[in-house]
Amino acid sequence: MKLTSANIQDLRTLYISNLKKTLDMEQKITKALPNLIEKSTDSELSNAFRTHLEETKGHVSKVEKLMQKHAGDTDTETCKVIDGLITEASDTIKDVTDPSLRNIALIGAAQQVEHHEIAVYGTLRRWAEILGLSDDVKILQSIEKEEGNADHLLTEISLRVNLQAAA
Amino acid sequence: MKLTSANIQDLRTLYISNLKKTLDMEQKITKALPNLIEKSTDSELSNAFRTHLEETKGHVSKVEKLMQKHAGDTDTETCKVIDGLITEASDTIKDVTDPSLRNIALIGAAQQVEHHEIAVYGTLRRWAEILGLSDDVKILQSIEKEEGNADHLLTEISLRVNLQAAA
Repeated sequence: MKLTSANIQDLRTLYISNLKKTLDMEQKITKALPNLIEKSTDSELSNAFRTHLEETKGHVSKVEKLMQKHAGDTDTETCKVIDGLITEASDTIKDVTDPSLRNIALIGAAQQVEHHEIAVYGTLRRWAEILGLSDDVKILQSIEKEEGNADHLLTEISLRVNLQAAA
Repeated sequence: MKLTSANIQDLRTLYISNLKKTLDMEQKITKALPNLIEKSTDSELSNAFRTHLEETKGHVSKVEKLMQKHAGDTDTETCKVIDGLITEASDTIKDVTDPSLRNIALIGAAQQVEHHEIAVYGTLRRWAEILGLSDDVKILQSIEKEEGNADHLLTEISLRVNLQAAA
């Protein structure tokens, strides 16, 4: 947890600080996804969330390895954005009681999370490139690709789910 | 401001609820961007933020018109995600004191905001399509396009700014 101002003076420190926030983000997503799986009533959607939960556990492990390599620990810093995203998803589950409408709303909430992750990993990858950390670049790219795939799959599912709700 | 559970039963209500959050998001971005303009020391970057501030004021006005049309008012609901994104940007300004490093960090923070907006407008546009609101679809698409362009411009600037910082 971050207690004081980081006073970041170089890109490597900035990179590690953002890895710590990313680890916090991924850990919180692994805790939030089971609720989304439970609350979605479309089997393709709940399967997509289930698959992404397994992928997310893999991301936690990959980011932990990067943290061990650069900082010698797996300490986290609070990612304030994911807290807001998860609260929005929880509010959606509370507010939208109709099952098929809730599926649509859950897709929207989950795609906000995916887009945030894509932005986070895109930035980390660019910083790793400048720092000449080619192994890190490969790992970050592989995660970024899985986030992008998850987002595309949700778009595909939304097209069908939306049509059903509109029928 | 949202005070009680919305108990959303149909897509139109869900759409309007998300328009309210979007308006809150855009209003908060217009308040946050002047700080980013002031704190960036790269003229191309501060110009990009300045241009995007003008665009964002246009987005506020467009979303207000949609709200007037559908709800007869411009009431907002709190977008909890943008609060987190703006706090992260403020923390970055506080933590990163070196000017060229701060420019890099500000680009990362701003791209997180752009990606969130792209996700928000993508979802709203799909819902407007199902609801048969073709005028809304056009307006939402035009905003989504400007958010996408802003994100791409920041990526282009980051390539040059990153190289300078690495030199």
